[in-house]
Amino acid sequence: MSSPRRRGRPRADETVDRRAAILQAARRRFAVRGFAGTTVRAIAADAGVDPSLVAHYFGTKQQLLVASLELPVNPLEKLAGVVHDGVPGLGERLVRTFVSSWDPHREVIATLIRGAMAGDDAHPPILLVPRDVLIATLSEVIDGTDREVRAELIASQVVGLATLRYVVAVEPLASAPVDEVVRWYAPAIQSVADNPA
Amino acid sequence: MSSPRRRGRPRADETVDRRAAILQAARRRFAVRGFAGTTVRAIAADAGVDPSLVAHYFGTKQQLLVASLELPVNPLEKLAGVVHDGVPGLGERLVRTFVSSWDPHREVIATLIRGAMAGDDAHPPILLVPRDVLIATLSEVIDGTDREVRAELIASQVVGLATLRYVVAVEPLASAPVDEVVRWYAPAIQSVADNPA
Repeated sequence: MSSPRRRGRPRADETVDRRAAILQAARRRFAVRGFAGTTVRAIAADAGVDPSLVAHYFGTKQQLLVASLELPVNPLEKLAGVVHDGVPGLGERLVRTFVSSWDPHREVIATLIRGAMAGDDAHPPILLVPRDVLIATLSEVIDGTDREVRAELIASQVVGLATLRYVVAVEPLASAPVDEVVRWYAPAIQSVADNPA
Repeated sequence: MSSPRRRGRPRADETVDRRAAILQAARRRFAVRGFAGTTVRAIAADAGVDPSLVAHYFGTKQQLLVASLELPVNPLEKLAGVVHDGVPGLGERLVRTFVSSWDPHREVIATLIRGAMAGDDAHPPILLVPRDVLIATLSEVIDGTDREVRAELIASQVVGLATLRYVVAVEPLASAPVDEVVRWYAPAIQSVADNPA
């Protein structure tokens, strides 16, 4: 038995159009203003919709950013699993999760990194992911002094690994099994994440 | 008392022309064929000089690569100091040396990294530095299993640090004092460099 149509509920093709308009407005705003300089309200105004609809379709501003990038892997979902159990084991979970998620999409990752570096945007959207997703999430989990710098240094390690494994694609690293990368790189990340005595 | 002019010794302006021709030929060859695929003999032929003259002016093929890049900091000279005393303390020397050398040239470093990522060259010359200078030098110093992958993972950390500190220029990392970067990042690099039991 189908439920009765609710008053004011958009038809399916209206929903598609509205979602597309929001995503387009979001991409433009994030590229010009960055993450901190962009409000959901401004994106909604650009797209000609109510701000509540943006939250309804996409959730938080972070989730909207990630949706607007159309990534092959959702970094927010992956990160949620990585940080769920806190700092112990973080290095291993971070390396294993990202490398095994990225490996099937290595050309896409390489293209995204190249494009981010080459772009004329004031805030290349893909660079908002390390800053406003990865670093933001890590700095909530890490304890102790210099937690922001340390979250950024972990992001450095993640960006560097992606660059050498996928963009420069230097061997044997480019083809090394995930376990070998985890074995050597996870302790390096863990040493930055560990709570200092 | 001036020494007598040797037979066949080029005049000063000939020397300048020959050096310039060699550097131009080197840049082109390295960009198209990479480091391993380029010989000093081929560069000399392109420049119309004897191969011995290339060695006389520039030294090794690595030194020629570095000279052709016209970098604000000579990575071979810096690296020589970093690896001189082997693995103990390598992480600290590497981070401290590179960050303090690069910091005065942060715009140049950022431009070089952006250009390398954006370029159409098969082998962006600046990317030959991590691979054919940094990784090559580190893998001679590091002991133990997986030394090549480990040298590459250290290069990942160096490239990532340069990217986040100079290209993305995320704060507080971009402006953090060298000592603070060393404090947190040196142990991470050291953990990859240390000889496994």
